[in-house]
Amino acid sequence: MAESDFDRIRKQVRQFVVERDWDQFHSPKNLSMALIVEAAELVEHFQWLTEEQSCNLSPEKLTEVEQELADIQVYLISLAEKLKLDIVAAVEKKLVLNAQKYPVEKARGNSKKYTEHKKT
Amino acid sequence: MAESDFDRIRKQVRQFVVERDWDQFHSPKNLSMALIVEAAELVEHFQWLTEEQSCNLSPEKLTEVEQELADIQVYLISLAEKLKLDIVAAVEKKLVLNAQKYPVEKARGNSKKYTEHKKT
Amino acid sequence: MAESDFDRIRKQVRQFVVERDWDQFHSPKNLSMALIVEAAELVEHFQWLTEEQSCNLSPEKLTEVEQELADIQVYLISLAEKLKLDIVAAVEKKLVLNAQKYPVEKARGNSKKYTEHKKT
Amino acid sequence: MAESDFDRIRKQVRQFVVERDWDQFHSPKNLSMALIVEAAELVEHFQWLTEEQSCNLSPEKLTEVEQELADIQVYLISLAEKLKLDIVAAVEKKLVLNAQKYPVEKARGNSKKYTEHKKT
Repeated sequence: MAESDFDRIRKQVRQFVVERDWDQFHSPKNLSMALIVEAAELVEHFQWLTEEQSCNLSPEKLTEVEQELADIQVYLISLAEKLKLDIVAAVEKKLVLNAQKYPVEKARGNSKKYTEHKKT
Repeated sequence: MAESDFDRIRKQVRQFVVERDWDQFHSPKNLSMALIVEAAELVEHFQWLTEEQSCNLSPEKLTEVEQELADIQVYLISLAEKLKLDIVAAVEKKLVLNAQKYPVEKARGNSKKYTEHKKT
Repeated sequence: MAESDFDRIRKQVRQFVVERDWDQFHSPKNLSMALIVEAAELVEHFQWLTEEQSCNLSPEKLTEVEQELADIQVYLISLAEKLKLDIVAAVEKKLVLNAQKYPVEKARGNSKKYTEHKKT
Repeated sequence: MAESDFDRIRKQVRQFVVERDWDQFHSPKNLSMALIVEAAELVEHFQWLTEEQSCNLSPEKLTEVEQELADIQVYLISLAEKLKLDIVAAVEKKLVLNAQKYPVEKARGNSKKYTEHKKT
């Protein structure tokens, strides 16, 4: 089978870290911190916007948000590599669990249920 | 070209949201909040562990961490879809920028530089 | 001078940690992680609410939010103690800096300016 | 009774917001986002440090961390004001609950218990 696009970026992320000898700093603990810091940079773009404004970003803002998404993805890949986890497989397994947790007939269009399920 | 593994999970995530009619709650603002909440659930697993302990998780703990990774990936995909952004392309562009920001010869093995560069 | 209310909770927080011998886990690094985990539990309450709904919480929800606020304050106090910082003095100094950064005449009623200033 | 130090900074924070007419942006939802963004700026200072290094910050770094603490406290106060919650009372109530959740004899020196209790 041909290399997938996700495999390709995984290798690029790995190479980037190896070339800089940064693996020594990349404990899962530290990577989880780096990841949430990037997630917060994403949140920062939206904190004073209304929900509607957040759907209608200027091209400049969208480019900045795109870069934050990339940063989060990079750390997510680094963390998965470190823990020898397969992100694609993890997502597929999690969606099965989520489907059991939020059955269509109960969860449909219901943010309250959504939140309450979440708590349990 | 055959559908890639990442395309496959993107479609699954999309279908999950559509079936539950949750798109109405998924403004970029809200999705950024959901994403950081999941990132914090990841951080929570590591908060009282030493860095070394975080490298040696029990199988049970590893399964929990895997699920948090999946949750983050799911929201990252949802947000990218919403903003019509291509995560794979975004990562490739960002790695080029990062390579300029952290040139190998300066960044090699240097966490201090890492942090200082980061600030600028 | 009489002990202030803030001094009183600082002592209570300190005593709580000492009685449990938890100081060994309370490095500033770990405390920063614990603090952001609590901040995310706060965010979780609001992630699917509209801004208007977030202003009109039910009494039950408000009690939960109050507990999250308390958790954040507790870790903020623990971290300040650990680093021998005085939170009240820190706030007073920071408000002076913020007033220079966001002069009234420019910042008045302007969320865009707010965000842009923030970036610089 | 004389005004306490905490009352004093609460009034200063309130005045700062009123003078800039920023109350319109300060929904609890938005304030929770601003708070976690500041918490992440705190985490960023510690992400690549060892726990030991995080206990031994340079004076410059300590000043930066102090400012992050202040920012978090400011948003915590703003959010409490908005929701008409009393932070000091909230902390005192929460410490009573925590004492029941983590009884001294069981929680003493035990980070594993700490984490496990946390989960329940």
